Amino acid sequence: MASLGPNIDELMQALRCLPGVGPKSAQRMTFQLLERNRDGAERLMLSLQAALQNVRHCQRCRILSETELCSRCSDPDRRQDQLCIVEMPSDVLAIEQATAYQGQYFVLNGHLSPLDGIGPETLGIPTLIRWLDSQETEEIILATNPTVEGEATAHYISELARARQIRVTRLAHGIPLGGELEYVDSTTLSHAFAGRGTV
Amino acid sequence: MASLGPNIDELMQALRCLPGVGPKSAQRMTFQLLERNRDGAERLMLSLQAALQNVRHCQRCRILSETELCSRCSDPDRRQDQLCIVEMPSDVLAIEQATAYQGQYFVLNGHLSPLDGIGPETLGIPTLIRWLDSQETEEIILATNPTVEGEATAHYISELARARQIRVTRLAHGIPLGGELEYVDSTTLSHAFAGRGTV
Repeated sequence: MASLGPNIDELMQALRCLPGVGPKSAQRMTFQLLERNRDGAERLMLSLQAALQNVRHCQRCRILSETELCSRCSDPDRRQDQLCIVEMPSDVLAIEQATAYQGQYFVLNGHLSPLDGIGPETLGIPTLIRWLDSQETEEIILATNPTVEGEATAHYISELARARQIRVTRLAHGIPLGGELEYVDSTTLSHAFAGRGTV
Repeated sequence: MASLGPNIDELMQALRCLPGVGPKSAQRMTFQLLERNRDGAERLMLSLQAALQNVRHCQRCRILSETELCSRCSDPDRRQDQLCIVEMPSDVLAIEQATAYQGQYFVLNGHLSPLDGIGPETLGIPTLIRWLDSQETEEIILATNPTVEGEATAHYISELARARQIRVTRLAHGIPLGGELEYVDSTTLSHAFAGRGTV
């Protein structure tokens, strides 16, 4: 492929580290940034610089944070005895937005996946164990994804909790609201059928 | 929506200047960059910085270039009397890749669009006129897009060329190779039918 210059090529390559960006999109983005939106390119450059410098993880719940403790962990009004465990920071945002949950979070930043070398250490399980041993926790809400790896991670953590007599709950499975029975996959439907409740 | 901090929010906003990136993708990209690929984020930041500093336009053909004249304009082996006029730098790359064309290019960096305030000045038409007046040109190949604006731009330039007795050609319209008649839109089909040739 014809090249326009090393800096332009390098920018196209660098953009491909973004999720969902292949060679064609990277080229389109490069031209957009350099041809039509240099202000946007500069803003992106500066914000990357600032974020790389200032964003680290909350020392308590491991979410991305710009302060040592994130805003939720340092909020004295939140319940201290409920702990919701999620895989990703985006899950925290989704739960905060959708529910009235007012307890604590712990972000694994992944799920158990021994084949990829992701074990309990990587997920911060030692930190979680210290948390459970040092602080009264009444309920652990396991909000990992309903995938094979997410379920395995949830099972692993529920064993830790049970050894400490902590009540463990899991998000309910069933038919999504607004969904149509006909289009729900059979595993979900069988879960929903088995878990039917009286009205 | 819950916020993780001003630097993280600013990065999410800044990513939205990329074409095709909405709020959800920007959030996904931000987490990917800060959580899993800080090296990629740093590389992107540095390459943006380098490109913003070093990339300008070729003074002759107006394509993005890191030198005063781009590699094509400074290549003495290319034909000087053929001039292909395109809308975008990516069109030059596409033609270079697909054809054996060995002439000159001129990049408009857009098309005539009076409602958006894009007139001949913005498209570098004065530069083009100086080119046509100062240098022998035998053929102008109009390779603007087959859209209403692209056709209008092509018409405008063909008038300039005709006033200077320069031969003007336009890329052929017709059925794309590998396409099926049934799925070709009716305008293209009628063009292809009217422009049929003897075999």
